[in-house]
Amino acid sequence: MFFASDNWAGAHPLIAQSLVSYAGGYASAYGTSDLDRRVEETFNRVFEREVAVFFVATGTAANSLALAATSRPGGICFAHAEAHMLEDECGAPEFLSSGGRLRPVQGSHGKIDAQELSREMARFPAGNVHSGQPMAVSVTQSTETGSIYSLSEIEAIAQIARSRAVPLHMDGARFANALVALDCSPAEMTWKRGVDLLSFGGTKNGCWCAEALVFFDPEKAREFGFMRKRAAQLFSKTRFVAAQFESYFADDLWLENAKTANRMAKHLATALHGSNSARLAWKPQANEVFAVMSTAKAQALQAAGARFYDWKEPDQWDGSLSAGEGLFRFVTSYATQEDDVTRFAEALQRA
Amino acid sequence: MFFASDNWAGAHPLIAQSLVSYAGGYASAYGTSDLDRRVEETFNRVFEREVAVFFVATGTAANSLALAATSRPGGICFAHAEAHMLEDECGAPEFLSSGGRLRPVQGSHGKIDAQELSREMARFPAGNVHSGQPMAVSVTQSTETGSIYSLSEIEAIAQIARSRAVPLHMDGARFANALVALDCSPAEMTWKRGVDLLSFGGTKNGCWCAEALVFFDPEKAREFGFMRKRAAQLFSKTRFVAAQFESYFADDLWLENAKTANRMAKHLATALHGSNSARLAWKPQANEVFAVMSTAKAQALQAAGARFYDWKEPDQWDGSLSAGEGLFRFVTSYATQEDDVTRFAEALQRA
Amino acid sequence: MFFASDNWAGAHPLIAQSLVSYAGGYASAYGTSDLDRRVEETFNRVFEREVAVFFVATGTAANSLALAATSRPGGICFAHAEAHMLEDECGAPEFLSSGGRLRPVQGSHGKIDAQELSREMARFPAGNVHSGQPMAVSVTQSTETGSIYSLSEIEAIAQIARSRAVPLHMDGARFANALVALDCSPAEMTWKRGVDLLSFGGTKNGCWCAEALVFFDPEKAREFGFMRKRAAQLFSKTRFVAAQFESYFADDLWLENAKTANRMAKHLATALHGSNSARLAWKPQANEVFAVMSTAKAQALQAAGARFYDWKEPDQWDGSLSAGEGLFRFVTSYATQEDDVTRFAEALQRA
Amino acid sequence: MFFASDNWAGAHPLIAQSLVSYAGGYASAYGTSDLDRRVEETFNRVFEREVAVFFVATGTAANSLALAATSRPGGICFAHAEAHMLEDECGAPEFLSSGGRLRPVQGSHGKIDAQELSREMARFPAGNVHSGQPMAVSVTQSTETGSIYSLSEIEAIAQIARSRAVPLHMDGARFANALVALDCSPAEMTWKRGVDLLSFGGTKNGCWCAEALVFFDPEKAREFGFMRKRAAQLFSKTRFVAAQFESYFADDLWLENAKTANRMAKHLATALHGSNSARLAWKPQANEVFAVMSTAKAQALQAAGARFYDWKEPDQWDGSLSAGEGLFRFVTSYATQEDDVTRFAEALQRA
Repeated sequence: MFFASDNWAGAHPLIAQSLVSYAGGYASAYGTSDLDRRVEETFNRVFEREVAVFFVATGTAANSLALAATSRPGGICFAHAEAHMLEDECGAPEFLSSGGRLRPVQGSHGKIDAQELSREMARFPAGNVHSGQPMAVSVTQSTETGSIYSLSEIEAIAQIARSRAVPLHMDGARFANALVALDCSPAEMTWKRGVDLLSFGGTKNGCWCAEALVFFDPEKAREFGFMRKRAAQLFSKTRFVAAQFESYFADDLWLENAKTANRMAKHLATALHGSNSARLAWKPQANEVFAVMSTAKAQALQAAGARFYDWKEPDQWDGSLSAGEGLFRFVTSYATQEDDVTRFAEALQRA
Repeated sequence: MFFASDNWAGAHPLIAQSLVSYAGGYASAYGTSDLDRRVEETFNRVFEREVAVFFVATGTAANSLALAATSRPGGICFAHAEAHMLEDECGAPEFLSSGGRLRPVQGSHGKIDAQELSREMARFPAGNVHSGQPMAVSVTQSTETGSIYSLSEIEAIAQIARSRAVPLHMDGARFANALVALDCSPAEMTWKRGVDLLSFGGTKNGCWCAEALVFFDPEKAREFGFMRKRAAQLFSKTRFVAAQFESYFADDLWLENAKTANRMAKHLATALHGSNSARLAWKPQANEVFAVMSTAKAQALQAAGARFYDWKEPDQWDGSLSAGEGLFRFVTSYATQEDDVTRFAEALQRA
Repeated sequence: MFFASDNWAGAHPLIAQSLVSYAGGYASAYGTSDLDRRVEETFNRVFEREVAVFFVATGTAANSLALAATSRPGGICFAHAEAHMLEDECGAPEFLSSGGRLRPVQGSHGKIDAQELSREMARFPAGNVHSGQPMAVSVTQSTETGSIYSLSEIEAIAQIARSRAVPLHMDGARFANALVALDCSPAEMTWKRGVDLLSFGGTKNGCWCAEALVFFDPEKAREFGFMRKRAAQLFSKTRFVAAQFESYFADDLWLENAKTANRMAKHLATALHGSNSARLAWKPQANEVFAVMSTAKAQALQAAGARFYDWKEPDQWDGSLSAGEGLFRFVTSYATQEDDVTRFAEALQRA
Repeated sequence: MFFASDNWAGAHPLIAQSLVSYAGGYASAYGTSDLDRRVEETFNRVFEREVAVFFVATGTAANSLALAATSRPGGICFAHAEAHMLEDECGAPEFLSSGGRLRPVQGSHGKIDAQELSREMARFPAGNVHSGQPMAVSVTQSTETGSIYSLSEIEAIAQIARSRAVPLHMDGARFANALVALDCSPAEMTWKRGVDLLSFGGTKNGCWCAEALVFFDPEKAREFGFMRKRAAQLFSKTRFVAAQFESYFADDLWLENAKTANRMAKHLATALHGSNSARLAWKPQANEVFAVMSTAKAQALQAAGARFYDWKEPDQWDGSLSAGEGLFRFVTSYATQEDDVTRFAEALQRA
């Protein structure tokens, strides 16, 4: 009953296998091996165009270097008030972009509201050195609250970004979960709707450590190799990241993993919704479920071996907590078993 | 005949095995799992004292964050003119220490000359805001040219650092190779001789990706957790780095790997020395061999499948090149086979 | 009728005179001249304790270097949502503190609400590397909206800062205006109430360029000389800043200038309030007056030669604008003449 | 007998006068006043082309922001080993360019040797992310040792810079001294010979605080306004810098001041050369004289009221010191009087 986070899971057996299969032999280092090249080609195929892809160590690195890559002096990146960048990365985006700023934008369900974005960006008129200048917009797909931007929502935000000539970044730490929920192509969810850079995460979806920054316009990435190295994010034995991605994409393992995670989240939501101990805080769309229950019940469940986190209330939430209640987050992953959910449902019944 | 670099090798079978064995199940993320804790304890045992150890993604990250951790405004770190930090890290130490400076110090065989160090540090008198102020000294063990600081040489440098109240950092990307060459304890080669921080590298010696920054005074590391996270160097699934280190230390695998690499370097040196096609540039002490030969012969060897790099001449070298000659670097690793060396010796004969 | 900003004024005649009187002769550079020392002593007297004072080029520099001086990895400085630091400094605080973050705190009348501050700081629990950690709190006195923190309000905020062991910074770009309005001593408005660092501004109150960062605990400033030089903020001929401050403090010129500015603001407020063309948005407490009027009237006034700026509505304002109305800011200074206000009042009548 | 530095002098009477004449009245702030615009036009005239000019607080700021403006990830700026940037700016160039590196280049008389520059740049082959990449070359005119690059020397260095597609920066803290020594036009000494950016210093030549960064291609300066503001270098009352420059350029005051300084240096050199107490270390070309004398004599002169500094021996100097001798620097300025030199000559005789 491990629903604490999708990074509590380990590595999918096929990915572990892939790593082992490349353990022997020799290959040139720093991203120049045949395997590296092959996986780069796979990214081109997955996204139906030539992209520039750079492996990095963490999702935070991908996000932060996206910011560094779009950086301008006095630059501001607009992101949802509850975005990972703003809440959970210890200032890495600001640090690695040498002081770039993140401006929180409001919106319900963890998604940037397009009108709010326009309003916020308008506070930074072109040429005003005092206020600084827009440098990027960042959306998270799926979001920190388990919701998903529709394709048209992405497009609307991209248009606003483009109206100020700044790139649109997507934090795709849970890219696959959103993709299978929307049932569209990777191209459709990204560059075809105006996304310019993507933090493409594999770690939460079955890899050990496989994160990449993807530029949909390779021309924009010309200096990025230096930027990655300067940030100490260039692995020497990159082929082991490549090996993970090779297996990740093979036979659509990544999509299968995400489908499993999302399906398990639905089951979990059903269990929570159906119990008289808890209510869903909002409808889950990917692999995260948020529920309200009494803190006493939550403690009982935790005592029974369930793992999940307290969650702070979002600023823009139409629900509310009564006395003694808390808001809790449950995350599923490729590794979640039906049995985990069943046992949780039973514990819930008992609690 | 892969002598290009020790990071062209893959992963030792026991380390690959260890990773697989931890692929299943769940564990808390971001360095808090039982395995993480256990490996931290192992570091304490290895170094015979309580240390603070932080896993990071790359050796460059370990070096750069060591600098960040010792940073002062206007701070200068003194390192050998051919140190990896200065020559091969694309400015990461400067970037991640927010503009800290590296000051090259001369010395033969890739080692800081103690008198030169004193002379250089004297250029930065205490309190002079124009020149800036010393913040650290960094030595590389073993060095970029395959040489090794003796324990008393380390101690002499540590004393100079201490006389200006700055810490001594050791870049130990090839720590194990030096250790087995000196045949002393890890404690003896570090804190007992005045080393304050250590970049402890496992990647070049049989791991896939296992680098750590070790503080011998844990008190000095109190804020470092934030520093690592802010630099986007905190893996979520850190236990897979821990797993590598667990296996690395078990049954002294790390020492065995280093002994193999050093022994193979000796064989290779013998082969080079014994041929009439090449001469040793200087005596190898760890797992790197530098030889002078005609570029024509080098090309012939490369055509025969040998992999090794041209090397720029060090500033302080008592040898010299004749016309048509080049200086070449050969690196061995845990993965180098006797057979590789034998075949190379034969190719050398033929060349 | 120049009410655009207090930095549109030039320099008070006595300050201009002081500069001329020091134009000849020689003096040692970089803050070491007798005059520099003398003015440092004056700061000690003004603040009734030994302080460490550092001249810098701009108010933005003082604020930003205050942040740099209090910086921690992953550090967050809490400031009012409309603070100059956040709205008007082009990211300088973030840049010069190497990526320190500013977290907006709400509160009416441009002042941090103590409860909001507590709530915001609680989002950053000690030791949580993901969220980052508090590093400072900053208040502006007088604020961007012309209001003033009472001494007990300062104290309350200082207590919250101290409860998290972070320093309290005061942005005193308009320090003198607040001081004479509260009619208390400089010590009383600062360190006696828990302020640790002060951006002390002279430029808006009659100097040409005289800004300083004041540490009330000189021990905390030990490395700051390097920090200032590294930020390129150490003038060579610092004695000309010192000369301005000498004259600024002599015979309480600074307090007289501020009293003039505040008195003129009161007159202006009376004129606006008394007209049927405008209404005061809120009660002015220092040298800034905010009024609501129709944009048509505002344009008529501007056409008649009055200079003042449109102002964006504050997030927390109990007033509101009707259609066709705007919010406008009027700033007075030491240079404002009674006659300016009288003519403005007449123009208002005509508009 | 103040020969310690040209920044020990105060302000030329005409410049002091200019400041006073603009003390009254109002003008728009932050570089937008009529006077600012007028002085910008003057820069265009002085340099015989449209330039983009930005006032900053210090010469260190001009140099550092030049580096920031030319910055690339992993970027390296090549400068003479004894350049002010490298020796006297406390790491400001590195800090304000977010970790850009300065690479020392050797050359006699404080001037970059073109061949050495080529050799050093060749160490950074295009596309090598490990070594980093060239981002700029910087020359100092006149140099720290009082020498001057000839026009063809500048051109030769510019060609090398251009061959790697990086800009050439000139540190012109003593621009006027070099200009009058070469007796050429400002255009001739800069963009006509391939200089792209210029730190234009007025402070050492009669101003109180007047430094500017000049872009010879205004297109390259499009984002620089944000860069300056983000570095806290945008004065609010910029017109007082403009006022200094207005007077500085009027009636060629700047050239007259420099001629005086250079002439006084010649007199001083003659006095030193002619005495049997000292010998010239090398021939002075601008306003700095370096002489060798016994430290005993130097102390006697200092006791007699002369002010001058010990100087460390340059790395590339064909002279040498005997036991008991020191190398000393004497700097003259617009303010140096014939009488100062005469009295010094007499003291020298007596010493």
